Amino acid sequence: MQKWLEKKDNLTLGKLLKEVENQTPLSTEILKSCYSNESKAHIVGITGPPGAGKSTLVSKLCKAFATQGLKIAVVCVDPTSPFTNGALLGDRIRMQELAKLPNVFIKSLATRGNLGGLAASTADVVQVFGAFDMDLILIETVGVGQIEFDVLEVSDTVILVNVPGLGDSLQTLKAGIMEIADVFVINQADRPGADESVKDLRLMVRESGRKDWDLPILKTVATRDEGIKELVEQIFNHKSFLLRSGSWKEKRQTRNMTRLNHMILQLLTTKVDELTQTDEYIKSQIQDVRSGNIDPFTVSHEIVNQLVSK
Amino acid sequence: MQKWLEKKDNLTLGKLLKEVENQTPLSTEILKSCYSNESKAHIVGITGPPGAGKSTLVSKLCKAFATQGLKIAVVCVDPTSPFTNGALLGDRIRMQELAKLPNVFIKSLATRGNLGGLAASTADVVQVFGAFDMDLILIETVGVGQIEFDVLEVSDTVILVNVPGLGDSLQTLKAGIMEIADVFVINQADRPGADESVKDLRLMVRESGRKDWDLPILKTVATRDEGIKELVEQIFNHKSFLLRSGSWKEKRQTRNMTRLNHMILQLLTTKVDELTQTDEYIKSQIQDVRSGNIDPFTVSHEIVNQLVSK
Repeated sequence: MQKWLEKKDNLTLGKLLKEVENQTPLSTEILKSCYSNESKAHIVGITGPPGAGKSTLVSKLCKAFATQGLKIAVVCVDPTSPFTNGALLGDRIRMQELAKLPNVFIKSLATRGNLGGLAASTADVVQVFGAFDMDLILIETVGVGQIEFDVLEVSDTVILVNVPGLGDSLQTLKAGIMEIADVFVINQADRPGADESVKDLRLMVRESGRKDWDLPILKTVATRDEGIKELVEQIFNHKSFLLRSGSWKEKRQTRNMTRLNHMILQLLTTKVDELTQTDEYIKSQIQDVRSGNIDPFTVSHEIVNQLVSK
Repeated sequence: MQKWLEKKDNLTLGKLLKEVENQTPLSTEILKSCYSNESKAHIVGITGPPGAGKSTLVSKLCKAFATQGLKIAVVCVDPTSPFTNGALLGDRIRMQELAKLPNVFIKSLATRGNLGGLAASTADVVQVFGAFDMDLILIETVGVGQIEFDVLEVSDTVILVNVPGLGDSLQTLKAGIMEIADVFVINQADRPGADESVKDLRLMVRESGRKDWDLPILKTVATRDEGIKELVEQIFNHKSFLLRSGSWKEKRQTRNMTRLNHMILQLLTTKVDELTQTDEYIKSQIQDVRSGNIDPFTVSHEIVNQLVSK
């Protein structure tokens, strides 16, 4: 069973990631093998609006971690583009530079129009990286909305990156990401309004009444390496906090349950597909749903009753 | 079966919407009844970033349609806020004003942390409105990402609202919403850069190579009623195009299939819940998944095999 993990080199890693991403017949066995290894990886999610400089920040973080001799994986997730195939050209070039660093392994994921599939792929990829003894796994994602939350659910530490002059977007922030961020970063802090943004965020943090963890708000200029050292420090601080408070273990337990639920749904979907492609009566019922001759509620009951024995 | 639809007054409508939104035991029967009525409703989705003035635009559109004696429903969907309960105060006040208009009925939906549930709720609510002889159903939603796409999938016509000076966000646009928008609006067009934004969009439309429908790009100042007449005209134009090209029918067929698939998943999820809450062996297996003693892949197979007879 453990044969995949006998040789933990980059070639094997790349192969396993590909199998898992493409959900080949081997992928379940691979994930099982990767599961049995207790992962020490600290999973760090980095999110924020487009143009906040996340990619630059991630590449600077990687350099800083790599200098310390740590093994780092980067997962780039782009949920905003279900139609095209993900990353913009500029990002791709940045990522290529990043991939040249020693001990850094990069994987890009883009949605293929499959709701929820992206979060599952992220979890799979993270699991494989974990079995390959990564010290840190950075997940970079963009966008607001449910998908982003699901992607970030895999993280131990969530970093929210913004730029000075948040303005209107603060309102949106307040109503969403606020509750799951562990570290705030104002990047491009050499632009006007940086201190004001920090002040605004500080007020929001105070209002939120979060008591367990003293949420840091950092200023960075990633292009000039400013503030990176402090950010690295806060990432390690948060890891210590998680271990101390028991959240490290709790988060892993919650994730195990999420994965179980997702796997069940995936298996059931396959069973439904098998039935609807082979049973002639069901096939004709489905045609009637499509053309509007019969309502989908009646037919869904028929299908489920035929599938489930009790 | 049709008893719900004997009296198509606002009181009944409000009651049915509530049952459907809360997924009460009655909701399936209600949706079946509402299904059998052929809906004439033109479903118009309106999306764009926060602060683009969507709510004001929707309220002006409503007024314009109401003046023509049409029956209008507005569905406000907020996928950006899985934690708080949706709408900001300013929006709520605008919506109350809107609700005073004759022939206008408003319904707000917010996600409750249930991935995919929001799109299903939107489809349910739209179906009920359809059975109540609405001429137009406007769906207002915010955010980027998969959820927004799923919500908009219910629409016949998608309007993308932006403000002058798109800048960086154009890149994101390009990679996503571009392909599903049918009408572009630059709102707050009295601000500098409006003409440039129109030019940028025109270039993007040309590059996209979309041939079937000549995608209009409109300038509006919703607060001053400027451009509303032209927008109304384009909404009707697009409806004619859909009917002429056969897309009107096709879109409905696709939606029927989406609903069928969603209903099947929902029913199966209920079956899984029943099993995992009653079977003692499965219960203990699930505890072992949570604590990490057994991998989720093995247990998901056990659960599905016990559930599905073949």
